[in-house]
Amino acid sequence: MTRLWNDPADFVDEMIDGFVAANTRYVRRVSGGVARSTKTPDGQVAVVIGGGSGHYPAFGGLVGPGLAHGAAMGNLFASPSMQQVFSVAKAAENGGGVFLSYGNYAGDVLNFDAAQEQLREAGIPCQTVTVTDDVSSAAAEEKHKRRGIAGDLTVFRIAGAAAERGASLDEVVRLARHANERTRSFGVAFSGCTLPGAPEPLFEVEPGRMAVGLGIHGEPGLRDEDIPSADGLAEMLVERLLEELPDGVDEARGARVIPILNGLGSLKYEEMFVVYRRIAQLLEAAGVEAVDPHVGEYCTSFDMAGTSLTLLWLDDELEELWETGVDTPAYRRGSVDHAGELIAEDDVDAAADEIGSADADGRAVAAAIVRLFDVAQETIDTHVDELGRLDQVAGDGDHGIGMQRGVHAARNAAHDAKERGAGAATTLARAADAWSDRAGGTSGAIWGAILATVSKHLADDGTPDADALAAGVSAASERVGTFGAVPGDKTLVDALVPLAETFAARIAADDSVGDAWQAAADAATAAATETADMLPKMGRARAHHEKALGTPDPGAHSLALLAQALLTLTDGK
Amino acid sequence: MTRLWNDPADFVDEMIDGFVAANTRYVRRVSGGVARSTKTPDGQVAVVIGGGSGHYPAFGGLVGPGLAHGAAMGNLFASPSMQQVFSVAKAAENGGGVFLSYGNYAGDVLNFDAAQEQLREAGIPCQTVTVTDDVSSAAAEEKHKRRGIAGDLTVFRIAGAAAERGASLDEVVRLARHANERTRSFGVAFSGCTLPGAPEPLFEVEPGRMAVGLGIHGEPGLRDEDIPSADGLAEMLVERLLEELPDGVDEARGARVIPILNGLGSLKYEEMFVVYRRIAQLLEAAGVEAVDPHVGEYCTSFDMAGTSLTLLWLDDELEELWETGVDTPAYRRGSVDHAGELIAEDDVDAAADEIGSADADGRAVAAAIVRLFDVAQETIDTHVDELGRLDQVAGDGDHGIGMQRGVHAARNAAHDAKERGAGAATTLARAADAWSDRAGGTSGAIWGAILATVSKHLADDGTPDADALAAGVSAASERVGTFGAVPGDKTLVDALVPLAETFAARIAADDSVGDAWQAAADAATAAATETADMLPKMGRARAHHEKALGTPDPGAHSLALLAQALLTLTDGK
Repeated sequence: MTRLWNDPADFVDEMIDGFVAANTRYVRRVSGGVARSTKTPDGQVAVVIGGGSGHYPAFGGLVGPGLAHGAAMGNLFASPSMQQVFSVAKAAENGGGVFLSYGNYAGDVLNFDAAQEQLREAGIPCQTVTVTDDVSSAAAEEKHKRRGIAGDLTVFRIAGAAAERGASLDEVVRLARHANERTRSFGVAFSGCTLPGAPEPLFEVEPGRMAVGLGIHGEPGLRDEDIPSADGLAEMLVERLLEELPDGVDEARGARVIPILNGLGSLKYEEMFVVYRRIAQLLEAAGVEAVDPHVGEYCTSFDMAGTSLTLLWLDDELEELWETGVDTPAYRRGSVDHAGELIAEDDVDAAADEIGSADADGRAVAAAIVRLFDVAQETIDTHVDELGRLDQVAGDGDHGIGMQRGVHAARNAAHDAKERGAGAATTLARAADAWSDRAGGTSGAIWGAILATVSKHLADDGTPDADALAAGVSAASERVGTFGAVPGDKTLVDALVPLAETFAARIAADDSVGDAWQAAADAATAAATETADMLPKMGRARAHHEKALGTPDPGAHSLALLAQALLTLTDGK
Repeated sequence: MTRLWNDPADFVDEMIDGFVAANTRYVRRVSGGVARSTKTPDGQVAVVIGGGSGHYPAFGGLVGPGLAHGAAMGNLFASPSMQQVFSVAKAAENGGGVFLSYGNYAGDVLNFDAAQEQLREAGIPCQTVTVTDDVSSAAAEEKHKRRGIAGDLTVFRIAGAAAERGASLDEVVRLARHANERTRSFGVAFSGCTLPGAPEPLFEVEPGRMAVGLGIHGEPGLRDEDIPSADGLAEMLVERLLEELPDGVDEARGARVIPILNGLGSLKYEEMFVVYRRIAQLLEAAGVEAVDPHVGEYCTSFDMAGTSLTLLWLDDELEELWETGVDTPAYRRGSVDHAGELIAEDDVDAAADEIGSADADGRAVAAAIVRLFDVAQETIDTHVDELGRLDQVAGDGDHGIGMQRGVHAARNAAHDAKERGAGAATTLARAADAWSDRAGGTSGAIWGAILATVSKHLADDGTPDADALAAGVSAASERVGTFGAVPGDKTLVDALVPLAETFAARIAADDSVGDAWQAAADAATAAATETADMLPKMGRARAHHEKALGTPDPGAHSLALLAQALLTLTDGK
């Protein structure tokens, strides 16, 4: 369990402050995370990694010569927002383009992809390789659907070494992809962890038992088993990884690997060394040469008790890169050149923040939007635990706190904009940015997109008509559809599509906005109820590989709750 | 809690095997622990550190260029034996003498001092500096009585850097002592840890509470308190350390320190960074410059949840040494030269192992000694949990398992010697060596000395007379007396002195050996009962600084148990 914090809401900010204070030789704080304390050499590819916080040394601890140039650091177990990734990349980039890499989770994919798009729009070449090393999260023929766990280190490291050597962006991509293809991990967990201030653990494992293949955010494993002996565990891990040789490795005998026995937090070094002793024997017996073994903590999950074994199957190209120097706060080998221009902390959010003009009607609509966010915040605050619990059965349990962070930030931004005289479009757009930036994760990206899309169908002057509202909601539904989920995937889309379709149909049939919204909210609720019933089954299905890296979450439930809550405002929208 | 092991009795051996297998670039296995994989340069002082296992990266993880040349690795939370320290030092030494350093605990002092004596007898210059950084374990004016905790790192590091630079043994001693004088630590714990296979935790802390000043083996702290906020903890730690400036530091303002925020196992990095954020602010506010801060795990206690803050108060000399390169399995900074002759694993125990001749009488006495050890083993096996519990209130809880390891090893060695035809003196001497070597810790050193001393009053031929036995027991009592404890200190001495005195007096009065031993055993039991009653009070007394680094333990109880048990052998001794 986590024991030390001040205000849990400030935990990640304060953690990053402390991390930077302890590592000024390596990193500086930038908006969205950290970047190296030295300027990226002219024309060098900037390797930008990231993900949720709670996995130290992933991700900030891996920034330095020979590894990453910057790390986007999201909230606890939640993807960094698009803005976070973008601004870290901007701070790290210096003419060589940006290489993005992260563990393959739905929220990270959404936000990193959006940041990649935005970087390209800003004229900065950008490419991405996601890490997919966890063999327990999808079948071999669907490796691209697998989650990223401790294999992050091998992919980031090869990319960082290549960039340091002056490789082009395309070459960094090729090598990182190659490393990812040759990296496999398999892990077990003995206990969960409790996030700062949370009333109960994110998940629990029965005493004396272990969850085989459990994810680093508590995603369901393959099965539960009694904890074996140290040797028994070593045999299980090695056996599974030798079962599945990567393409290009014809047979284990004669191969060379980097073994990484990673601790998740409170399984300690002595125990891991006892396990590694047997791993070394088994690899040797299989004719596999263990090169530069790693036993320690490389990708944790707070103080979760658990461990995973990663094998990077070397070839000459990878081995040569692996043996170059690297020097970061948490990962150091060989010697590196630290020379480079030291730069101070970036100006955070120094961009102009002007509010355009709006007429009285526009300001009145802005005031109504602010009241909507007041109600939305109250609704989410009331249901935050319920949403977290619903998410736990299928996802990583962060949906409730993610929604809460998002709606609070959006409400505050809306209030701020309104008080500064903003009209409807600006007020909603500001709320959208704030939600996405502060919430992070999948739901942050989706809600940011929904609100931003609706805002584009509003203006700062005048009162929007019902058709504009319906068009905005329909456009938002279409935009979210482009993220890849379809109705039936047990995501927010399940509720958003009927909501948008019903609302548009009723408005077209000349219903009042209030009546149309009532019907739309009921349609969303009906869909969400079905989704919620399905979620526990989805969790089990994923655990058995039928659906591997799915996105099922209680997003539909949240949407329905909010849709119903907004009806309490008698003035409609 | 510890979850992974095979046979708990093999845990440390297998842990060292796995550690060495994972770190062949750095270390090789030698009898008693590990040494660098490269030969110590001709004439360089060999820095040999060590202590009980369970504190990784202390001590094996700190072996490499710029730090230690070898580490003696004792059993879990138990001092390495004299033989272990001696043989690691022999493996590491190459003409420059040996510098020994370790945390100040009674068992380590006994064994390292004995090894130092043996090294000097072998013509190898040897000197020692004990680490005494824990401010909660004794008052400032008795710094030499304080325990060593995470401050180990600063003292070892300065010594290692000095040796690397070619400093003489005297100069290494001066610098290490100087670093120790300028190192202060203060810590708290939130939970205990369970040793592999143990039925219950070594100690427990009430949920929501923390033990202030608790030692890394569960030694009692100063007091219990509610867990404060992260900032509150930072304030408590910094305040206490700024209260007590080392000699030579006139005022905090303007001073430069190395801050080390050490995690004990399952308090994780994110939490420590939140705490360090406030520590950095407080140091800055006090005008203290934090140089090269360390936040991580440097001296753990398995998965105990807890943390300590160490400050090394720099001067130019220390800072220059601190900034040199260092490269070990667990601690790397800057760049170092790894060049050097690689050497393979040492031959373990290749020394000649011949048994001298003995006559029939001598072999008959050897058989009686073997029966004594059979009874002793059975007795300790029966009482192992009780001894552990008694030790926990005042010491580190390892007395029971230490006695068990010792008596099993001694019994096996005695059987082996007897079967190979050894007489009484050789059989008992072999048992003495085995006990001390396998048990480690304080009791291992003491029991090894008792048995070895008695063995010198026996011969391999003939039957010893009662006077020889009495002289042997008296000499053993005197020898243990030289270790520093006196009757009333609540150690084995409380029982050994009346046992030896009574036995000698009764033999002098012509009692039979059986009768004399009965009276001696009763005297020991009476003394031990009193000691056992006092132990809980001793624990609390230490917690309140009245007696700081004391040695109270259930040694008297063990001795009395064994003395009584031996009476069940009707043939006397």
